[in-house]
Amino acid sequence: MQRYKCTIAYIGTRYAGWQIQEEAKAPLTIQSELEKVLLKVCGKLVRIHGAGRTDAGVHADGQVAHFDCALQKSPKEWEQIFANLLPHDINVYKVEKVEHDFHSRFQAKNKSYAYTLWIGDKSKIPPRLRPFVWPCSKQLDVKSMNAALVYLQGEHDFCALQNVGTRLENTVRTMYHLEIIQGSIWAPSFLQSSLLTFNVKGDGFLKQMVRNMIGLLVAVGQGRLDHNTIPKLLAEKNRPKLPATAPACGLTLMKIEY
Amino acid sequence: MQRYKCTIAYIGTRYAGWQIQEEAKAPLTIQSELEKVLLKVCGKLVRIHGAGRTDAGVHADGQVAHFDCALQKSPKEWEQIFANLLPHDINVYKVEKVEHDFHSRFQAKNKSYAYTLWIGDKSKIPPRLRPFVWPCSKQLDVKSMNAALVYLQGEHDFCALQNVGTRLENTVRTMYHLEIIQGSIWAPSFLQSSLLTFNVKGDGFLKQMVRNMIGLLVAVGQGRLDHNTIPKLLAEKNRPKLPATAPACGLTLMKIEY
Repeated sequence: MQRYKCTIAYIGTRYAGWQIQEEAKAPLTIQSELEKVLLKVCGKLVRIHGAGRTDAGVHADGQVAHFDCALQKSPKEWEQIFANLLPHDINVYKVEKVEHDFHSRFQAKNKSYAYTLWIGDKSKIPPRLRPFVWPCSKQLDVKSMNAALVYLQGEHDFCALQNVGTRLENTVRTMYHLEIIQGSIWAPSFLQSSLLTFNVKGDGFLKQMVRNMIGLLVAVGQGRLDHNTIPKLLAEKNRPKLPATAPACGLTLMKIEY
Repeated sequence: MQRYKCTIAYIGTRYAGWQIQEEAKAPLTIQSELEKVLLKVCGKLVRIHGAGRTDAGVHADGQVAHFDCALQKSPKEWEQIFANLLPHDINVYKVEKVEHDFHSRFQAKNKSYAYTLWIGDKSKIPPRLRPFVWPCSKQLDVKSMNAALVYLQGEHDFCALQNVGTRLENTVRTMYHLEIIQGSIWAPSFLQSSLLTFNVKGDGFLKQMVRNMIGLLVAVGQGRLDHNTIPKLLAEKNRPKLPATAPACGLTLMKIEY
């Protein structure tokens, strides 16, 4: 048996998220598409374990997963197999042989996400960017949003930013890096002024935490929430008191480090 | 009656080209989607006339079309109507009031197209770029391709580069500008070395002419054709003697000037 580590990019639009769903009429998921390929190649069910379950509609440039297989295949061969058999909106762009104790989820040291806002005229969003942005009002006060970031930086109990209904023992996470930058790496220069990208890197994220952060930041940027109230809101741990979750389409899982 | 000029961007992947098809089970086209919106808003068939019929799968960043309508609506209102009613892969990003004698096709002075080649490892094409590139071998000799461009520059009879079966009186066209550049405006910096963009601007183009030019240029780049034979091949006007048409997905109609 050999364990393989896969680095995966996908456009989440068509999928019900990463996680396979075992119902009779199961929707398409990223994991189910990958396991279809493994079933075809290996002739039996081979489970692929993702580092994190991206929600329905969330994209990835650097999701990581691992699987075990007894077939003698090189990483290069696996890359070509995936390129030939996966739909065009999923790409395993890197396969590596790893030790048997490597685990995509348990050994992840940090994850980076990017969230892209379209801040220009809503009627002018280019179709190429449409699946990847959340259209927001142009009247975002980026200075206030940057002031808000200071309160999210570092180690905090992020319970107030986790999806209602989820129960987790430990809701403390550390945000190593947060920034808001003008533009997007996927847009040509003439569109940079219509885009805002929020980059965040942390040791882990609660369910919908990045999208809840964005909901919070946009509320601050639109003047619906004073950035100085953030410490109090985090301390109260009362999710319904905070602004609504931002839509999935703007979010991309960028990178996972081990 | 007011005549409106529309500037339109679309992802051609899902469509059977620009031109409406009048059969019983007509496939989706860009024109049919636009006319659906006009029918809804105006309560009757309103024809929209495109500057050029892009083929099935070809994209546009700057297609132009015009339509006439008696409703009192501002360009801004039309832009919002289209944004609300069109599918996400089509966007009318500019509507302008024009004179009654404006015609999107007959008055076009020049058109610009871009064709994008993926020259990196085929197994590493990012899903975000997949619908917009033609994956080609990395072994393209760009110097020879640039030498080939010289023979296509200026006024020529391009009969040899028009789709077989088409009959046109006049097959002389003038290419004002041709260039091959590294990269793509739609890709982040770390992917620029895996992309090659061919830009062409001319007073008009024969059916599949840009894609036939690309087939020719890639054959030169791969050493299958000597660039010095191009004048002779053009003079012979024998399309079947020339390399195959490049696929539609790599092509984008960029701009039309009036």
